[in-house]
Amino acid sequence: KLKTVPIRAVRIKDGFWAQRRKTNITSSIPSMHDELLAHGRMDNFLRLQGKSTEPQKGPVYSDSDIYKWTEAVGFQLQNNDQSELRRTTDTMIREVVAVQEPSGYLNTYFNGDRKPLRMQYDTQTTGHELYCIGHMLQGAIAYYRATGDPTLLDAGIRFVNDFLIPNYGPGANQKEIVSGHPEIEMSLIELSRTTGDRRYVDLAGYILHGDPRIPLRPQQIVYMYCGIPFTSRTKLEGHAVRCMYACCGATDYYLETGDQAYWKTLNMLWDDLNAHQLYVTGGVGARAAGEAFGDAYELPNAQAYGESCAAIGNMMWNWRMLSATGDAKFTDVMERALYNGINSGMSLDGTTYCYRNPLAFDPSGESRDRHLVDGKIRNAWYDTTCCPPNLERTFASLSGYFYSTSQDGVYVHLYDNSEMNWHLNDGTPVKVAQETNYPWSGDVKITVSPAKPGEFVMYVRVPGWSKKNSVKVNGKEFAGAKPGEYLAIRRQWAENDTIDLSFDMTTHLLKANPAVTEDRGRVAFQRGPIVFCMEHLDQADHNAGMNLAGYIVRLDGETTTHFEPELLNGVMMLSHPAMLSDISSDTGLYFSAATPKPKETATTIRLIPYYAWANRDPASMQVWIPYRDA
Amino acid sequence: KLKTVPIRAVRIKDGFWAQRRKTNITSSIPSMHDELLAHGRMDNFLRLQGKSTEPQKGPVYSDSDIYKWTEAVGFQLQNNDQSELRRTTDTMIREVVAVQEPSGYLNTYFNGDRKPLRMQYDTQTTGHELYCIGHMLQGAIAYYRATGDPTLLDAGIRFVNDFLIPNYGPGANQKEIVSGHPEIEMSLIELSRTTGDRRYVDLAGYILHGDPRIPLRPQQIVYMYCGIPFTSRTKLEGHAVRCMYACCGATDYYLETGDQAYWKTLNMLWDDLNAHQLYVTGGVGARAAGEAFGDAYELPNAQAYGESCAAIGNMMWNWRMLSATGDAKFTDVMERALYNGINSGMSLDGTTYCYRNPLAFDPSGESRDRHLVDGKIRNAWYDTTCCPPNLERTFASLSGYFYSTSQDGVYVHLYDNSEMNWHLNDGTPVKVAQETNYPWSGDVKITVSPAKPGEFVMYVRVPGWSKKNSVKVNGKEFAGAKPGEYLAIRRQWAENDTIDLSFDMTTHLLKANPAVTEDRGRVAFQRGPIVFCMEHLDQADHNAGMNLAGYIVRLDGETTTHFEPELLNGVMMLSHPAMLSDISSDTGLYFSAATPKPKETATTIRLIPYYAWANRDPASMQVWIPYRDA
Repeated sequence: KLKTVPIRAVRIKDGFWAQRRKTNITSSIPSMHDELLAHGRMDNFLRLQGKSTEPQKGPVYSDSDIYKWTEAVGFQLQNNDQSELRRTTDTMIREVVAVQEPSGYLNTYFNGDRKPLRMQYDTQTTGHELYCIGHMLQGAIAYYRATGDPTLLDAGIRFVNDFLIPNYGPGANQKEIVSGHPEIEMSLIELSRTTGDRRYVDLAGYILHGDPRIPLRPQQIVYMYCGIPFTSRTKLEGHAVRCMYACCGATDYYLETGDQAYWKTLNMLWDDLNAHQLYVTGGVGARAAGEAFGDAYELPNAQAYGESCAAIGNMMWNWRMLSATGDAKFTDVMERALYNGINSGMSLDGTTYCYRNPLAFDPSGESRDRHLVDGKIRNAWYDTTCCPPNLERTFASLSGYFYSTSQDGVYVHLYDNSEMNWHLNDGTPVKVAQETNYPWSGDVKITVSPAKPGEFVMYVRVPGWSKKNSVKVNGKEFAGAKPGEYLAIRRQWAENDTIDLSFDMTTHLLKANPAVTEDRGRVAFQRGPIVFCMEHLDQADHNAGMNLAGYIVRLDGETTTHFEPELLNGVMMLSHPAMLSDISSDTGLYFSAATPKPKETATTIRLIPYYAWANRDPASMQVWIPYRDA
Repeated sequence: KLKTVPIRAVRIKDGFWAQRRKTNITSSIPSMHDELLAHGRMDNFLRLQGKSTEPQKGPVYSDSDIYKWTEAVGFQLQNNDQSELRRTTDTMIREVVAVQEPSGYLNTYFNGDRKPLRMQYDTQTTGHELYCIGHMLQGAIAYYRATGDPTLLDAGIRFVNDFLIPNYGPGANQKEIVSGHPEIEMSLIELSRTTGDRRYVDLAGYILHGDPRIPLRPQQIVYMYCGIPFTSRTKLEGHAVRCMYACCGATDYYLETGDQAYWKTLNMLWDDLNAHQLYVTGGVGARAAGEAFGDAYELPNAQAYGESCAAIGNMMWNWRMLSATGDAKFTDVMERALYNGINSGMSLDGTTYCYRNPLAFDPSGESRDRHLVDGKIRNAWYDTTCCPPNLERTFASLSGYFYSTSQDGVYVHLYDNSEMNWHLNDGTPVKVAQETNYPWSGDVKITVSPAKPGEFVMYVRVPGWSKKNSVKVNGKEFAGAKPGEYLAIRRQWAENDTIDLSFDMTTHLLKANPAVTEDRGRVAFQRGPIVFCMEHLDQADHNAGMNLAGYIVRLDGETTTHFEPELLNGVMMLSHPAMLSDISSDTGLYFSAATPKPKETATTIRLIPYYAWANRDPASMQVWIPYRDA
């Protein structure tokens, strides 16, 4: 229903996201390049050309690290050219394609002793060959769109055309295929969009359907979220990133084919997400074991896995559902994930990353977790380094998520200082600009300038969290804004027409469904799209022993807000009346309910945006805070 | 400090445990025998003799299934002879020892292609060869004590004397050794106690110290809980059963050597258990991932792992700590585990078992758990069938946990109808008998009958949960009983002297330390040693949609008790005033804290003993129930 506006057509200007994106290009992408090289990710390619004597480094999916980083570069270069970065990447791409075999096959891991394992169906379930190629195709397309250089894209097409399509598929002479880690599905469809070759959609469809010749154990079917007809799924389960990427591929397939069986399944799965599986931060995938979705309502806080990649997958999926419908409920989830569970994944300085994104944290108690290095949740490198370049490509591509066009106009999805120079579906050039201090302020001024006056619709999103809204067109009230919907403003638009939006920035205290055990008796704070958290070092008594367990929010209190320009690159801080319960005395693990309550003193808690946590000294953190009724 | 009273010297008479033990011998042990055979556990031994053509069945540790079952039989035969069971077991033992190689080595898994892997140190970390032999030794000792038949014991001694001691150890010509899954340590010490050979204690000490020649990754050191000096441990962590068995072996080593470094470590670890890691059911090991201890206070309910074997390991360890001290705090933990987290592991009919023992359960939501078969938490067979025979050997050996002797008298640890016919440490025969309806009643009549009158001490345990106590000796009040201590009654005892104990059976509502996130705002019910739970099918509205999430205990209410002789083999049922919150309406996953509270209606909740849950139709269950203050 909606058409994507290319990244290059949108400029994000100074503001909330510009700061993050500047860090991304000046700090994250260069430092990740160095990390990738230091950990042998390019040596893997050089070794096969006799240019390196290093042994194979990293896990089976290590080629994808290079491809995801290349995709981040490709998106970045679509915004502005960076000649040095381009030269570096060009060189890397040449080393990659030099390893492609005459058959079209390309993978550095399955060589030498491992050569016989290539594309065996057992290997496909865990070997990530197609996952790597999927990321290669995405990186190649982004790079091609930025630079016009088809080197990597041609290599990707050779893999698909020469190696994959002739040899794998339903034909009698073709072999079995399973994606193992879904990713190839959406990249094949993007390749079809890029080249016009519909065979790629068909192959994606075959993979999404599952190859009936491959015997899979029930656990594999759950964990991999592929191998059986996607349309037979009824709930989110298994490895969260696999599951989200499968949903992305399936939505892309629906967008290309209109297959209603897919659409029915996708909506059922989305309802499961929204009703049972979504953290208030937009993160998904509660369980560390198997990096997996938990049961319905299983959303622990300190033990939350909430992998950065899964939150990204969630955003990518909701973006596709939005494209299919123009329904703002999907944008609400996208925005929730982007500002919170994704944005938390990269440190403010852009050099360290969270793999897990828990909603509560105690630095003294977490030493057993394998994703902490020396007790730190943010680290520059993980041997499975999926999340860092995934975050980089997300921020680099962000301008592509702000606007869409439709048959009858323009959609505005996200708010930040920005300028779109694009055209209506009928070809009329149109410029849409935003001026705002979003997300700290709810006021957004949009200027609409078509090249020539004409009637069309400006669809402006009213976020679900904004209960009272004001919309003015050229200074005059425009009625009809409803929370969680796009407001359709159909009129004759001419140059420098304005839309003034004013969203409700009241801080909301949220409760969770009582079936979410760990959130029971607790509230979370949200203001605009931003979810907040307490870090111990912002609290008045931050030297006390019991960390954050003693704070109790007073529901009869009023939240006050204060912008702190020097703190954490500039954040809104919330203050709220609370009680501090003296629970440092040792009651033991269990004690009689008849024991007198500990003494309480009045205090004020202070909260920072969740995305900014763990950017100072290690400290306890919590999003969900116990409350007491008035 | 305390000396064990042999199993054969104690008879448990009709009452709470006699019922369970009767089920164990008439149902569990025979049905598990059939399951073991049906799943090829004996074929593994027969195949190596050319008597079976079946391939190797089951995981690497499958030999231990046979040995643990043999140990259960051995304990059972110490209580009363069962000629058919003995014949069956004798035959199995002959098939086992027939497989022992001239070198002394015995293991059915590491044969054929796997022969070169035998006892490589890498294999030792995961291969369970010593774990299997440890269970073999325990089974052999129990069987020898019951029958005098040394067949299996001799084979075990040959493994240790001929294969292990000459080849493995610190010597220049000896190879590296690591237990991998601790178990061999405590069995070597029991073998030393049985044979008088101190070399076994020394070898156990070497293993407990860790072989410095084996390079282990940090995760292995945490997970296996061995491989570095036991005395360098400061907290419980890693695989819970491994950790508990390591603590058992270390306590046995302390008991034999008096090494104070061990004692210091053991007490530090016990404090960690008691302050941070113990479920109210006595279960331990919160995490499914790695079947492991979690962080401090990480005690989730629905997601609790609480493996039956870990609760058993906890009881075995506390029994050893009690033996070293006579301190009733260890007996309190033992009793908590036995009546609750262990007893829950076997169905009332003795034919199905829990692997996990969660403290909350929703049969509709748990289909993703690998220990559920067809949605059922109790199953007759698991391919890793460690828990079922472990439960069987525990119940079969229970009479050995009731009494001890000390330098100056007799300790009474557990209460149930029973009779000890043994002797004081000075050799004077003494009979101690109990008459009681414990755990439903707190009244226990103990009759003490020494063969000749004399002065000694009767140490009677006052449970930690019993706050008001009455003790009478020959009908006269005896002062000094304190909760959680042994009351020492020193006097001249003569035939048919009586001690009348009356413990406080008030139902306690317990709260947990606020750092236990999931228990916050909730209470658990305990009466005597029994922890209770709500099952949905006992509630007035058991057809309602939201399962148990709507019930709120009124702290100002009084618990009433009612014995139900026909229910669940006869249980005390608790009733308590509560509110039922109408939360079936769909609020979504998150909603404003300003949303009006759902309507509440007064109701009464009904609770059954936790150990008896999941013995009827599948139903939601919870131990920790939300409360509201008066």
